[in-house]
Amino acid sequence: MTTSANPSSFAPLKNDTFLRACLRQATDYTPLWLMRQAGRYLPEYCATRAKAGSFMGLATNVDYATEVTLQPLARYPLDAAILFSDILTVPDAMGLGLSFAQGEGPRFASPVRDEAAVARLEVPDMAKLRYVTDAVTSIRKALDGRVPLIGFSGSPWTLACYMVEGKGSDDYRLVKTMLYSRPDLMHKMLQVNADAVALYLNAQIDAGAQAVMIFDSWGGVLADGAFQSFSLAYTARVLSQLKRHGVDGQIVPRIVFTKGGGLWLKEMKALDCEVLGLDWTMNLGTARTLVGGDVGEVRGSTASGAGKALQGNIDPNVLFAPPDAIRAEVARVLDSFGRPHIDTTTTGPTQIFNLGHGISQFTPPESVAVLVDAVHTRSRELRA
Amino acid sequence: MTTSANPSSFAPLKNDTFLRACLRQATDYTPLWLMRQAGRYLPEYCATRAKAGSFMGLATNVDYATEVTLQPLARYPLDAAILFSDILTVPDAMGLGLSFAQGEGPRFASPVRDEAAVARLEVPDMAKLRYVTDAVTSIRKALDGRVPLIGFSGSPWTLACYMVEGKGSDDYRLVKTMLYSRPDLMHKMLQVNADAVALYLNAQIDAGAQAVMIFDSWGGVLADGAFQSFSLAYTARVLSQLKRHGVDGQIVPRIVFTKGGGLWLKEMKALDCEVLGLDWTMNLGTARTLVGGDVGEVRGSTASGAGKALQGNIDPNVLFAPPDAIRAEVARVLDSFGRPHIDTTTTGPTQIFNLGHGISQFTPPESVAVLVDAVHTRSRELRA
Repeated sequence: MTTSANPSSFAPLKNDTFLRACLRQATDYTPLWLMRQAGRYLPEYCATRAKAGSFMGLATNVDYATEVTLQPLARYPLDAAILFSDILTVPDAMGLGLSFAQGEGPRFASPVRDEAAVARLEVPDMAKLRYVTDAVTSIRKALDGRVPLIGFSGSPWTLACYMVEGKGSDDYRLVKTMLYSRPDLMHKMLQVNADAVALYLNAQIDAGAQAVMIFDSWGGVLADGAFQSFSLAYTARVLSQLKRHGVDGQIVPRIVFTKGGGLWLKEMKALDCEVLGLDWTMNLGTARTLVGGDVGEVRGSTASGAGKALQGNIDPNVLFAPPDAIRAEVARVLDSFGRPHIDTTTTGPTQIFNLGHGISQFTPPESVAVLVDAVHTRSRELRA
Repeated sequence: MTTSANPSSFAPLKNDTFLRACLRQATDYTPLWLMRQAGRYLPEYCATRAKAGSFMGLATNVDYATEVTLQPLARYPLDAAILFSDILTVPDAMGLGLSFAQGEGPRFASPVRDEAAVARLEVPDMAKLRYVTDAVTSIRKALDGRVPLIGFSGSPWTLACYMVEGKGSDDYRLVKTMLYSRPDLMHKMLQVNADAVALYLNAQIDAGAQAVMIFDSWGGVLADGAFQSFSLAYTARVLSQLKRHGVDGQIVPRIVFTKGGGLWLKEMKALDCEVLGLDWTMNLGTARTLVGGDVGEVRGSTASGAGKALQGNIDPNVLFAPPDAIRAEVARVLDSFGRPHIDTTTTGPTQIFNLGHGISQFTPPESVAVLVDAVHTRSRELRA
């Protein structure tokens, strides 16, 4: 078993802007972080990865994982750090054999494609994921209270996609064949996944994570109806099991991001979480109207149906444009969310600025500097 | 120049169910056809393609194109035929050099990536697309009035994606880099594309096409805001130039399908077209409420903002399930649309059954037979 980190070893938090925005509290500016902010677009990341030899070599080494998690923070005044890891560590711990070929996506040596393989699935011993929880504690210490640390996992459905397909897919034929032909097997797999993800995220919380995020990267490939039954229901099953407070007694906000899930936003409002992530196809103003909640909802309320903070949603390809165009698109995204909530005595609609998906490996690092500065500057102006 | 087909050479239409549903008129059952219904899942298609030597060899030969277009109709009682061709014939006629490597997608020899390449773009001489219009006339004759023939093109934006990327993409980095960095170049390309697509679809109408469809296959990858400016506006530009009547004097319904466009459905209602195609992520009942129109709107009205017929939207992966599961999913999709419009004296909300995207090459042909029968049988029952 993993043990809880000792909270006395963690420095007090200096920048709580991200956590406040998660809880729909007013902030002086719109906080931001970037999905996959520790990644291949940074030369220093590539150097560390070269030392580690492979992606999993990087992710399973506590020192390397700590080093690369902090790299983007050394360059940019981001408002949160996110654990350097992969969304597929849980099925790897189930014995499926995760690997990453250079220049390709993840791959499982033993995909789950029949009744026998599903029957063998079990919630893994968290000791097998000790490298993750150790990294969480190490990163939290290394952050020294500078910004909060986000832990994460893939959603039950997204894990199932990779577990059945064995790798990325452009049609999800194998996993959907199982879904439509043997829904009983799919539900069994999703139950195991959900309980494993919940245990895993709780272990990250015990190790020091100050927020957790569920990446439902492939929820958007499901048909209406199937999404609700095979993705949303199991995300809800994870959320129902999560610890509400971290080792330091603070609330741990829960973020759910379904790529391509804009059509189901109203249904996602019922999730027992604080934040919904959005990709760039969703209009933030519309999202705010649908799920952003009113001013003055009970402070700290995270009950099912309460207003959600919104996280997103600029197109990562904006970072290939010149500085003026980046600034214009940042302004457009902030303006689409609308008037910031500034009353510190109540809760209200809030945005956490982010990309609508992970940053591209081809991104010029100097574009990220422009983006970060534009978000902070412009969002302060909007509050003035 | 292409010349108009002689309408006296076309047999009277025996099955107008599809065309009636396009015009929101009551039908005895829900008509259906399948995107990519002439394709690799049919052994007889593979045999003809082997004779032709290549995909373009197939598409550019009038006899082969006619043969493969009719193949699915010999197997299944489908309610429409669709021209066998590719969405990328227009940029090929612009000189970009379209090819299809075996087992891969389309590829352009000369992608359009800079100002000089954009400046060289021109609406192509339709004589270069004579192989398409000749195929339209040949197919229409061969159909002998059995079902209507649908012509089609890629949308201006979707063509631009391939023209800039040079092939399919999973991040659309190059085309979006141009969009965000040089919107002036992107608008120039889209204007040329729109005018070329309009001329091309009009040529298909003159050659005998009885409906036309614009495939905006990649509209859904755009950010909110960018979709409206770079995809929807140019689809509207195409529609504004289209002929309203075919060579036989009949109305030619216009279908617009934006994959992943469900979030923008309300804005798409303003398009001057008769039918909106939907993928499987969109709930048909919701779509009907948003854009399906009321009962009794002016018969034949296709003004901007008028109610649209809806085309779609079952997940093609359902065809990998056993017969009973296919029938259950067909029933679910028909039921999600809701009560059929049965009053023959007024117009009202209608559905044209289809897949939410092209049929997979791995589909068992016998599954298609189950699907077609289930749609016809169940939709007749719903009207009883």
